[in-house]
Amino acid sequence: MPNPTAAMLVIGDEILSGRTRDANMHYLAGQLTERGIDLKEVRVVSDDRDAIVTATQALSSAYDHVFTSGGIGPTHDDITADCIAAAFDAHISVRDDARALLQAHYDRSGLELNEARLRMARIPDGATLIDNPVSTAPGFSLQNVHVMAGVPSVFKAMVASILPTLTGGAPLLSRTLRLMIGEGDIAGPLGKFADAFPDLSVGSYPFQQDGTYGCNIVVRGCDAALLDVAMTTLEAQFSG
Amino acid sequence: MPNPTAAMLVIGDEILSGRTRDANMHYLAGQLTERGIDLKEVRVVSDDRDAIVTATQALSSAYDHVFTSGGIGPTHDDITADCIAAAFDAHISVRDDARALLQAHYDRSGLELNEARLRMARIPDGATLIDNPVSTAPGFSLQNVHVMAGVPSVFKAMVASILPTLTGGAPLLSRTLRLMIGEGDIAGPLGKFADAFPDLSVGSYPFQQDGTYGCNIVVRGCDAALLDVAMTTLEAQFSG
Repeated sequence: MPNPTAAMLVIGDEILSGRTRDANMHYLAGQLTERGIDLKEVRVVSDDRDAIVTATQALSSAYDHVFTSGGIGPTHDDITADCIAAAFDAHISVRDDARALLQAHYDRSGLELNEARLRMARIPDGATLIDNPVSTAPGFSLQNVHVMAGVPSVFKAMVASILPTLTGGAPLLSRTLRLMIGEGDIAGPLGKFADAFPDLSVGSYPFQQDGTYGCNIVVRGCDAALLDVAMTTLEAQFSG
Repeated sequence: MPNPTAAMLVIGDEILSGRTRDANMHYLAGQLTERGIDLKEVRVVSDDRDAIVTATQALSSAYDHVFTSGGIGPTHDDITADCIAAAFDAHISVRDDARALLQAHYDRSGLELNEARLRMARIPDGATLIDNPVSTAPGFSLQNVHVMAGVPSVFKAMVASILPTLTGGAPLLSRTLRLMIGEGDIAGPLGKFADAFPDLSVGSYPFQQDGTYGCNIVVRGCDAALLDVAMTTLEAQFSG
């Protein structure tokens, strides 16, 4: 059975303007690979209702899971929850379970659960809450879309809350052979090697070191024994 | 006149598997912002022909410019040039101008311009070459799509080659007010502030420092005088 597929939707003007460098994509990619869920596409869109709704609908229908990052705080530019609800034509309002979590949290910290903070309890009907052990305000899953915060520490905590509940596949394994040879000198035989192992994916990633070209040959697949055979073949061919 | 719009298409299994952390998106975003070109969307797709062709067509028709990163080297997994040609139904083969550049480069370095390296001279008919001062193999622009390498040093050099040739708009300016106040305490008045300056975009980006919540209020726009007025207003309101 093929692995489940996934997409990620990053929401944030601050990424697109270059002000902030996104950290969540790289983190999620690694976590999904370990769990055997194949991340197939990432989109980054601005804090714009149409852009978020359109991307959510496109990704939700194309992949088994969609993970979003960003736009679920208390301020006016946090519109993700309402956009996800709109994408599925779901009703959204302050929900009692989310409000209770926030009320307990702000009672503990002596802060007021004001109107702005209450926005973080806006959860679509039918959604399941995602636990946030860092700062309480929950994420949620609606159908196959998992809505999480953009702050990296909170995003990581939410990924840890949701991933164990999803059915994964065989983890994707990868092996790397580092060669101090330019890609152009090995491309021909490497292509034949890739053809000889159709169940594995073979990538070549060039680099420069001290003015010399080298490349990392990365072989990926779910079958450890097959990977061993492939790497032995590869080493015999190129490390000679 | 509104600023030109742009999208970026990052091509690479190594990003989606979490093996490599993309660096080109953040770099391009900053460069485009300085030049007054609004980056509206980024997509990351795998080394898959259908995925690349479909994304290229969608982004090319939706935005003024598309910048791609990755997949133009000499190995079997470098399929970007052929996919961009396919997206526009353009013929592609080894082109004399690109071959001459590579021939001179490899003559200088004493390496053979073999069949694999010659793949890097595959350029669609009608495309304009993008200069690569780092490693010679050129990128190209076909219609509104600018095709560049994934290796960050080469990507940066190609961006420097292509950006001055594009018509920019008014550079997007941004000012930041750092507050050691939680977002939830300022969200109400901040929303009213944003409403009072409809020509500016106002974002709030929370952080934690020493266990305390703070946020950066970022105000963006092209009119420096208007930004000054807005920041004075903002400081009077929140810095107390």
